Order: sequence, then structure tokens, then C-alpha cells
Amino acid sequence: MPTNTKILLKTQCVGLPKESDFEEAKEIAQNPKEGQIRCESLYLSLDPYLRGKISGRHISGAILPGDTMTGEAISRVQVSSDPKFKEGDLVIAHSGWQSHPVIDVAVATKVADREIPVSTYLGIMGMPGLTAYAGLLRLAEPKENDIVLVSAASGAVGSMVGQIAKIKNCHVVGIAGSDEKCEWVKNVAAMDNCINYKSQDLSEKIKEYCSNGIDVYFDNVGADTLQAAMEQLAPYARVVLCGLMAQYNSNSMPAGPNPAWIIKSRATVKGMVVYDHEDLREQFMNDVSQWIKDERIHYLEDVTEGLNKAPKAFTRLMQGLNHGKTIVKIND
Amino acid sequence: MPTNTKILLKTQCVGLPKESDFEEAKEIAQNPKEGQIRCESLYLSLDPYLRGKISGRHISGAILPGDTMTGEAISRVQVSSDPKFKEGDLVIAHSGWQSHPVIDVAVATKVADREIPVSTYLGIMGMPGLTAYAGLLRLAEPKENDIVLVSAASGAVGSMVGQIAKIKNCHVVGIAGSDEKCEWVKNVAAMDNCINYKSQDLSEKIKEYCSNGIDVYFDNVGADTLQAAMEQLAPYARVVLCGLMAQYNSNSMPAGPNPAWIIKSRATVKGMVVYDHEDLREQFMNDVSQWIKDERIHYLEDVTEGLNKAPKAFTRLMQGLNHGKTIVKIND
Repeated sequence: MPTNTKILLKTQCVGLPKESDFEEAKEIAQNPKEGQIRCESLYLSLDPYLRGKISGRHISGAILPGDTMTGEAISRVQVSSDPKFKEGDLVIAHSGWQSHPVIDVAVATKVADREIPVSTYLGIMGMPGLTAYAGLLRLAEPKENDIVLVSAASGAVGSMVGQIAKIKNCHVVGIAGSDEKCEWVKNVAAMDNCINYKSQDLSEKIKEYCSNGIDVYFDNVGADTLQAAMEQLAPYARVVLCGLMAQYNSNSMPAGPNPAWIIKSRATVKGMVVYDHEDLREQFMNDVSQWIKDERIHYLEDVTEGLNKAPKAFTRLMQGLNHGKTIVKIND
Repeated sequence: MPTNTKILLKTQCVGLPKESDFEEAKEIAQNPKEGQIRCESLYLSLDPYLRGKISGRHISGAILPGDTMTGEAISRVQVSSDPKFKEGDLVIAHSGWQSHPVIDVAVATKVADREIPVSTYLGIMGMPGLTAYAGLLRLAEPKENDIVLVSAASGAVGSMVGQIAKIKNCHVVGIAGSDEKCEWVKNVAAMDNCINYKSQDLSEKIKEYCSNGIDVYFDNVGADTLQAAMEQLAPYARVVLCGLMAQYNSNSMPAGPNPAWIIKSRATVKGMVVYDHEDLREQFMNDVSQWIKDERIHYLEDVTEGLNKAPKAFTRLMQGLNHGKTIVKIND
């Protein structure tokens, strides 16, 4: 029997997560019961919302000290106790930070072969991609020539939002945290402009690049970035609140923008939770796989090798030091 | 020629308006030019948004020291220089705090006789009524059995919101600032519950009266009241941001609720500006006049006699000491 290596949360993080907040454990891999499959994990997705779960503040529930870290992963079936899955099938599931998970087939999805790299099913073809697709197209309803502003524009969600908005013929301005990220946003993801919020005056640059105001703001950050955007909304703007990168590491809840900004612009502000949009998944996967093949969508993966490096990769992600979708490669 | 008495803004208010921030001026009433009418004012509407205009922060423009105070009023035509208006016609216009205004007919609306008191055209049949009607029905889209929470529930807008929500078979909880107001909200306006935010624990009472969360929150207040409501939204709640009573008297912009509350509840938050909803006016007036005749809508007017008392009535309004729609009776 193979050994299952797991990464557990050791202590509830305070502020930025540290590698020492996690610990490794090993056990004999279990055999699957009826309706289960045992897999070997290939790629693990790391996402900022996990920090919210560690604080007990995420809609999908808490991760407590002693728990195996959760997270979405691609894995390959080794032993199946269900007729619908066979050895060698690739599946995607929230199987967590472990090398040989046993997964209930009810919560596993087979990965169809669409001739694109399987790791994309954790990024642009997966949850972050669906978040961007549904959040932008269903909640913000962009129209041609709309001015779309997106924060964390080189990140897993933000880069998709910006590129889908370009496909829909919007004028797109990104916000990112380094010149290198901004270069990628402009030159590879082909957004029209990108603001480095760490070295430039965010409000001034929004004024320059969105001189008629922001029609759509897709927020992955919160805090000062959200405030700066809310002050420059165009009439009838649509704002999608999706991520809270600026406060995931904090135990306090900072205040938000004054409601006057919403009234003044007659804006519509919507909260985005990806679980509400499963009905769009098929359409989303068809659209995005086609866009990838047509080279209309580019993506960037920040890949770390080895499950034991997952804590380090997570601390980098939560400091914004990643560049693109954060993935841990566990096996080939 | 009659004398036109006007009330001017004398000094920009700091904090709560004082009577000494205003001054009276008299002049010979003017004769109307072509396309104008000269009127005698009957009823003047006082509304909290005027305080925002004095601070230069309202969407409809600023009132500066030396300007005649603006405001909506009902008046009777004395001299007409336009074929569509004749002596004795009742009109509604933003003719301001003056006894004998000259009004361009392009911005005057004739008051049709619907056998209801004309002062209602400043309240439930006028701008506050349309605000409530469009804000609730168009922006919040209440469904039968929704839990609707409304702040300033005995005020001109809030009392209409609550009563229309009852007509639409919602469960309605009001928030008001005195036991007397709460009694009226429950016993006359027939809302299901009312919270006195000055003497009761607002969050605890919302929890008690909206135990499954708030489906619709109609906010006329902002600040702590908005915060308390945002923390208890039901999934897919709709929030209408309409008024900012808690900050009109302030020169600072307090922070608002953290965006996490909107994400968590997948809420939709919309800014309400009544000028966007003129297309609903006819339907609104038909519905509300019928509801008044059917005694399904009750209203309360806080009437002060005499134009010279307008500053005092305005200071009372801005302290929340009014009880119902604030109206100044200038003439019969």
C-alpha cells in the first residue's frame, strides 16, 4: 500500500501564514469503500480563500488546527470501488493537501480530455475561471465599450476577468502589485492599461485611464483599492465583490466605502460566490477551451514542485508574491 | 403687486442647521414672462437631502450662501403667461422657499384633482412616495413573505416603503427613533414590528424580528443602522441605499460596512436616485391614490404654519424630531 502524505494545519495563523503553521503527517493509504476511489494527487490548487477558512470566516466552513488542509486538486484514480470510475481516470475534487486521497465519487468530477493541459482545470478552466466567467458575464453584464477595472489583474481570477472583458470588446484597466505583473497584464493578457498600485497613485491613475468613470469594477482585493474604485464609478456602474485579498490575513474587519458612493453613481453592487453558478459550468468550459485554442486567453501558472512545499507556496501567495495561478505539482 | 418673501441660506451650516443659518428677504413679486407663471405658494416640502445640497454633496447641485433655499412646493397660479396654465391652477414645482415664485412652465406640473388632499403631492403622492415606490418595487423586487427591514420607518419615504411592502404581502420590520414613532409604525402603518434604535439594542432586535435574516433592507440612514442590517442579511438579499440621514449633518464621510457582508450573503446593493424613475410616475400615482382611498396607505404630516418658520422646521427635521412628512403651510 502506498503512503499517504498529508499537510495539516498545526496552529491557527495570526496575520500572514508561516510555514511553521503547518505540519506533515504520514499514514498508510486507505482502501476505497463502495462509492469511493483512491487516487494519487497530481496538481493541488492554492487559493486565497483558504486563509479565510483558517480564520473561520469563509462561507464554505472552517479549517481547524489538526485538520488536513483543504483545497481543490487534480488526481489520477489508482483503485476504484465505483463502476463509473476506472484506474487511470483523471478527476477533480476538493481532496485537500494530501498525496493519496480517498474520495467519494459523489464529489469527484471526471476531467474530460479537451487537449489542453490538465493543470488548467485548477485555474482558468476551474474554479477561478468559473468565478471570473460568471462574475463578469452574469453579475456585471458588461456591454461593448464599457470601461472595466479589475484588481489583482495578473491573478487567477483577475487575469481571466480582464481577458474575457477584452473578448467582449470592453476597454480594460488592470491593477497589480509589481511592474513585472503589469507588463504581463498589458503585453500578454492584452489589457489596455495596468496600474502598479504599489508604485503609482492609484486614484490618479484610475482618473487618467478611466476618464469617463468606471462602468464595471471587479474587486478581488477590498480595502483601499475598493475605496479608490468606488470614488470613480460611472453612472449605473456595476461592481462585483469577489475577493478580499487585503483582509484575508487580518483578524479584524476593516470598514468599507461610504454608501454615498453607491447612491451617487446609482451603482449595483453584487456579492460573488462561485458555488451559485454551477449551472454555467458546461458553457464556461466550452467557451474557455475554445478561447485557449484560439489563443485569445493566456494564462500564467506559478508552479511549486512537491507537496511538502505547499506551506511555503501558500505563504508566498498570501503575500502576493505569486505570479499567476498558484499550483503545487505533487506527481506527474 | 404682492410682496415675494424668500428665505435665503445665510451661512453654510456646520453640523446641525441652526435657524440663524437662514435669513428672510422681501422683494416686489415679479411678473411672469412668456412661458412663465407667477404663483402663490401653498405648501412647501422640507426634505433631508437639502442638507446634502448645503454641503455641496448632493447629486442635484449645491445651495450656496445668498441663494434662495430650494425645495418642492405646491402653489396656485395667480398670473399666467402661458396658454396651458390659467389662474387658479394648482402646480407642483421646485419653486423653493418663497411665497410668490415665478416659475417656468417647463418645470411645473399641473396637479390633477384626485380627491385627495393636495399636500400629499409633496409626500406619499410626490417625490418621497415615488422614491419609496420605485426603490422598493423596481430596485428591491420584494417577493411574497420576504422579510423587509426599513429604517426611518415613520418618515416620508420609510413609512411608504413599509406600507407598500405590506400590500405586497411581505413581513415588515421598521426602525424608528422614539416609542411614539414606533407606535405609529405598528398601529397605524400596520408594519409587523418596530425597533426603537435609541432605546433598544438594534442588532439584537433585528435578530429577534428577522430570525431567518433580512431579505430586503431599505436604508434611509446609513452608518450604524446600515452596519447592523448588513450583518444580518439573508442569502441573496437586496439592499436599497436611499438616504444618509446619519451623515447629512456631518462634513466628514464615515466609512461603510466591510464588503465581506455583501459577499457572504451574495447580496445585491443598489443606489437609489428618484430622478431615474420618472417613467413610473403615472403608475405610481394611480396605485397610491387608489391605496389611499382604500385606506391601505396611511400618512402622517408634520405641518408647520408660516414660511418664516421654515428654518425652524428644517432644524427639527434634521434632528429627527419631525413625525411624518415635514411640510410648511404657506397659504391656504
